[in-house]
Amino acid sequence: MSHNSFGHLFRVTTWGESHGPAIGCVIDGCPPRLALTEADIQPYLDKRRPGQSKFTTQRQEADRVRILSGVFEGRTTGTPISLLIENTDQRSKDYAAIASAYRPGHADYTYDMKYGIRDYRGGGRSSARETAMRVAAGAIARLVLGRSVSIRAALVQLGALAIDRARFDWAQVDQNPFFCPDAAAVPVWDAHLSEIRKQGSSLGAVVEVVAEGVPPGLGAPIYAKLDADLAGALMGINAVKGVEIGAGFAAASLRGEENADRMRMENGKTVFLSNQAGGILGGIATGQPVVARIAIKPTSSILTPVETIDAAGHDVSLSTRGRHDPCVGIRAVPVAEAMMACVLADHLLRHRAQLGSAPEY
Amino acid sequence: MSHNSFGHLFRVTTWGESHGPAIGCVIDGCPPRLALTEADIQPYLDKRRPGQSKFTTQRQEADRVRILSGVFEGRTTGTPISLLIENTDQRSKDYAAIASAYRPGHADYTYDMKYGIRDYRGGGRSSARETAMRVAAGAIARLVLGRSVSIRAALVQLGALAIDRARFDWAQVDQNPFFCPDAAAVPVWDAHLSEIRKQGSSLGAVVEVVAEGVPPGLGAPIYAKLDADLAGALMGINAVKGVEIGAGFAAASLRGEENADRMRMENGKTVFLSNQAGGILGGIATGQPVVARIAIKPTSSILTPVETIDAAGHDVSLSTRGRHDPCVGIRAVPVAEAMMACVLADHLLRHRAQLGSAPEY
Amino acid sequence: MSHNSFGHLFRVTTWGESHGPAIGCVIDGCPPRLALTEADIQPYLDKRRPGQSKFTTQRQEADRVRILSGVFEGRTTGTPISLLIENTDQRSKDYAAIASAYRPGHADYTYDMKYGIRDYRGGGRSSARETAMRVAAGAIARLVLGRSVSIRAALVQLGALAIDRARFDWAQVDQNPFFCPDAAAVPVWDAHLSEIRKQGSSLGAVVEVVAEGVPPGLGAPIYAKLDADLAGALMGINAVKGVEIGAGFAAASLRGEENADRMRMENGKTVFLSNQAGGILGGIATGQPVVARIAIKPTSSILTPVETIDAAGHDVSLSTRGRHDPCVGIRAVPVAEAMMACVLADHLLRHRAQLGSAPEY
Amino acid sequence: MSHNSFGHLFRVTTWGESHGPAIGCVIDGCPPRLALTEADIQPYLDKRRPGQSKFTTQRQEADRVRILSGVFEGRTTGTPISLLIENTDQRSKDYAAIASAYRPGHADYTYDMKYGIRDYRGGGRSSARETAMRVAAGAIARLVLGRSVSIRAALVQLGALAIDRARFDWAQVDQNPFFCPDAAAVPVWDAHLSEIRKQGSSLGAVVEVVAEGVPPGLGAPIYAKLDADLAGALMGINAVKGVEIGAGFAAASLRGEENADRMRMENGKTVFLSNQAGGILGGIATGQPVVARIAIKPTSSILTPVETIDAAGHDVSLSTRGRHDPCVGIRAVPVAEAMMACVLADHLLRHRAQLGSAPEY
Repeated sequence: MSHNSFGHLFRVTTWGESHGPAIGCVIDGCPPRLALTEADIQPYLDKRRPGQSKFTTQRQEADRVRILSGVFEGRTTGTPISLLIENTDQRSKDYAAIASAYRPGHADYTYDMKYGIRDYRGGGRSSARETAMRVAAGAIARLVLGRSVSIRAALVQLGALAIDRARFDWAQVDQNPFFCPDAAAVPVWDAHLSEIRKQGSSLGAVVEVVAEGVPPGLGAPIYAKLDADLAGALMGINAVKGVEIGAGFAAASLRGEENADRMRMENGKTVFLSNQAGGILGGIATGQPVVARIAIKPTSSILTPVETIDAAGHDVSLSTRGRHDPCVGIRAVPVAEAMMACVLADHLLRHRAQLGSAPEY
Repeated sequence: MSHNSFGHLFRVTTWGESHGPAIGCVIDGCPPRLALTEADIQPYLDKRRPGQSKFTTQRQEADRVRILSGVFEGRTTGTPISLLIENTDQRSKDYAAIASAYRPGHADYTYDMKYGIRDYRGGGRSSARETAMRVAAGAIARLVLGRSVSIRAALVQLGALAIDRARFDWAQVDQNPFFCPDAAAVPVWDAHLSEIRKQGSSLGAVVEVVAEGVPPGLGAPIYAKLDADLAGALMGINAVKGVEIGAGFAAASLRGEENADRMRMENGKTVFLSNQAGGILGGIATGQPVVARIAIKPTSSILTPVETIDAAGHDVSLSTRGRHDPCVGIRAVPVAEAMMACVLADHLLRHRAQLGSAPEY
Repeated sequence: MSHNSFGHLFRVTTWGESHGPAIGCVIDGCPPRLALTEADIQPYLDKRRPGQSKFTTQRQEADRVRILSGVFEGRTTGTPISLLIENTDQRSKDYAAIASAYRPGHADYTYDMKYGIRDYRGGGRSSARETAMRVAAGAIARLVLGRSVSIRAALVQLGALAIDRARFDWAQVDQNPFFCPDAAAVPVWDAHLSEIRKQGSSLGAVVEVVAEGVPPGLGAPIYAKLDADLAGALMGINAVKGVEIGAGFAAASLRGEENADRMRMENGKTVFLSNQAGGILGGIATGQPVVARIAIKPTSSILTPVETIDAAGHDVSLSTRGRHDPCVGIRAVPVAEAMMACVLADHLLRHRAQLGSAPEY
Repeated sequence: MSHNSFGHLFRVTTWGESHGPAIGCVIDGCPPRLALTEADIQPYLDKRRPGQSKFTTQRQEADRVRILSGVFEGRTTGTPISLLIENTDQRSKDYAAIASAYRPGHADYTYDMKYGIRDYRGGGRSSARETAMRVAAGAIARLVLGRSVSIRAALVQLGALAIDRARFDWAQVDQNPFFCPDAAAVPVWDAHLSEIRKQGSSLGAVVEVVAEGVPPGLGAPIYAKLDADLAGALMGINAVKGVEIGAGFAAASLRGEENADRMRMENGKTVFLSNQAGGILGGIATGQPVVARIAIKPTSSILTPVETIDAAGHDVSLSTRGRHDPCVGIRAVPVAEAMMACVLADHLLRHRAQLGSAPEY
């Protein structure tokens, strides 16, 4: 048990605060002899890196990852992999205002309630900066899963503006600063978020993450269900308030025969005629794409003044300066991919434990 | 790590199949000296028990729980509590049809893909019968939480028919077979579900579960967030396809200043002016009510014939006879309460571990 | 985490008190499709069963095990296996004396210190009766390990009387009531223990347990070392006060070149010229027999009166009546085998998780 | 579950290889608001540091620890504490000989059997260098335990030479390079080990570790017994081959009335008239000193040539050069203390979880 570890057999432990000297993680349980260098991890970090457009925080972090252990002559050894990223662009003085006052909608108040002490600089441990290590771990999880599994995510709704799913094109996702799969939505979103940003406000979003090539049988009843583990993993991303699998909340409005994905044999293979299940039945993968969506609330740190209290128990009004994302949903896209990868890699190892056939068995 | 255990310090391990001799659970970590008899558990099981209205399965099970260990002279001893319920109304012959064919939307196919063997009688381990033990464990979790925490759930949507939230009245919930908090919705739902049932179909639903009296500070970053643990716990209930906390998916459409719950001091106490957060910020309780909603898909076992395949790889059409709930969402209400109770009790013990002040400390 | 579960992937959770209605266990993580009936478990329970000679407690328990879940048509399904044994020969009245007084050397005092409540009947949860479920779980662990791994234990010392290792013969172990591998020692031990028993006293013992066929590579650094896990598992058996692997404490007196087991190639295979290591180096199996020894203290419940205190804080003298083993070390023999089997089965699954080659990998 | 983590609630995860850029650990679950700086940790590391006498490896490492997270303004925050020590005196070329040949008695062979890859430089992950992080974690564990608990260890046997227990004096332990509590033994040991060292050989040892002030009630049945957890923790230290608690292996030769520690009331307090139990009954602390002893085998890396094989399957003779401890038992003294501290701190938190009285409870 650990508050700062994720996964059971592919196990990620993260540490570090937004404005400490560094952040890092330790990955335990990774299979040996996988080719691994920093170059396998860095591209995913670059995708999540702040300061890349006007729609993300202006904090400048190179986010250069270093591998400190677990790799020998370019291959994993089966021992723990330690990753470290130095923090270089901390401006702790930006945070004087929130040293005593609690940002509404943020974890400031609850950390104080729990611990009686709080590293307020940049949100300390509660900062989304921690998600950089999730992304790094996710890159290694992809190596564990191998090339037959592909994991992609996209922003499918910005504020109240959803994409037109008829125009969904994965090829568009890396062509715009929103990870938007609908090219026609991009200029509309750009204008909308620019305006919101000028107003000192922020927007929520919906991210969809899809894993293809997940083998049927992955996952496990009853308290290790693939969808339950995904729900926990995705809800645990900063600012997420909802998770759904497949048809999700829309399934509540369906009739049994609409919801149950019919099956046929085609060329000796099982084919499903729809994917309301989002690739999971009884907590176990069907072999169809695993589809999850998450709702992300608007950034709580906004310039617009809001009523709040301070640690001394006074009513105050707070306008959060500093460098913040007008829509944290955007940078949640690579994080959602990473959590999907980590959950699947963990389940791959769990499945092998119970079902695999080691040579000596 | 365990596929069939839930929780870390208040730890529930369940076992048993729908048509085996019995189902049961073991609860480990329960504090000692709590008054506990079967009478503390039975009322919750009775609420979930099948056969109580035409809207739930007609299987007749007394669901009498027996405490086999962990209690001495009416008090818990701190050692594992073993609970057992005998299965009495199995009709395994009902399941001949699904011995070889896979019910679409059900776990039949995925269990075979995973294990290569499957107890097809009544769904075996994948049956919602397992949730009886969650309810039993939840009853004990409530004792751990004490009287200051109250946990209630209600059905807030049946199929596409949502309640009118202006008429939400907890007092109504136990007055109708739907656990519906809106008295005016009951006859409408009754007529609708009766019709669906006659047609041999089924409906989905949405359940809302609310915990009041949760102390601020409960929960923990980063991978033990209260909302993440709730999401995993609730998504793991049979047939659940979506989970949201507080404003949930609606938060995606809000602006920062609409979403952030403002805070004021009133009579020396912190007061929030709204509860978009659903009582959780940064994974830690704020002290407001913890509010979650889950989407439940329509029952997959329906009379309406659906296309599917059998284990031999033939296309077949399957009409599921046997005794099934036309809306599994109804009986999910006490189960959702139980999972909320188990998550909170586990976090209470986790919190005490790190923060509590044992005499010797 | 759990106080009453053992193992990580082959996970055993036990429950039950000496004088409750039953004892039982749940085994999670067992691979599917293994042939399993009660007849695979019962012989091991019979070996541990009380009342078989004058040297063990006279309590009469049939110790008939029932499988309540996890097996379908004679094969494991991969879901949790629930085992139950009814208690039939409880004589709780024997324990009136220890309801308030603490037996020196027993857990009576510490349970009260910890929990403030204690099921004193027969020692409650602290009774060695719990080890019946370890033996049952061990029988299933052997099935997981397969026929290539054999696990045997023997009593190599009774009180101060050690066997002559030159006469060590596994074939003798089941030919006498001591599980003694030295036929010449049996009459000597018989006379000695009979005398001790008449005197109302008890004796300690040393058990040696050996696993052959353990594949090289099983085990794992750094905190999952095979020897560390064995040490924990064996020290956790009731009354055990010491554990050693291979040369054990004698290794402290050796020089480096005496202790390091030399290696040679013979017919293309690695051969070790000695086994001081007891089959484990760096926490990982070498392929040699895994050898452990445990020291068991003499039974604390003796007729000889001993000075002690009662719960009210008075000095008293206590003579423990009831039915007790004059040497608990004897019945520890099948228990030690079982713990060895559980540790190895757990490590087999752990190894497969990280190293195995699942089809999709 | 994790191969490289120790403890459940006070949870230590270590990483790093002997000749990588650094070693480190992450400590999760530490209570907040404890005063903590590097100066609280460094003295314990200095005690374990190599190169301090001719009886330990001549590798020169400053072993300067840095705290990278989890501490704010000199106090723990309740979030993970990351510690890092840079490796500065690696001489990887020393290890060319063992790149292909397996040192008998060392983990070289088993790592290759398990992982198929091995960082042979200085033993890689299997190096005792990893124990530096155990010592660092132990320093923090002591802060969690508070001042009422004291933990000390001493070398009580060097090779075959045991101390005279009548001369046992804790004050002597820090006055000689052996951590020897018997001043008269020091010159004898010095002469003996000097001679062994000159001969290119090595010696084993026995370490005794004692914790005083452990409150009665700490620990837990059945699979979280304090002695079982200690046995696992201590056996997991590099080169340990045996663990005993209290009377240990000598208990096997005792009669019941000799072994059972009698109890009396003195001034309203429970007093034990002996401590054969080593402070633990039924897995739970009695309040007496917790006493454990461990047997450490002689260093496997010796100059004396020994027969072995290489990775290509050839018989070779190997003389291990490089810098090695002629008796690894010496530096195991602070490591044994650290593991005792970690086990007790973990159990303190576990006890609080189940038994403590948090304000809201």
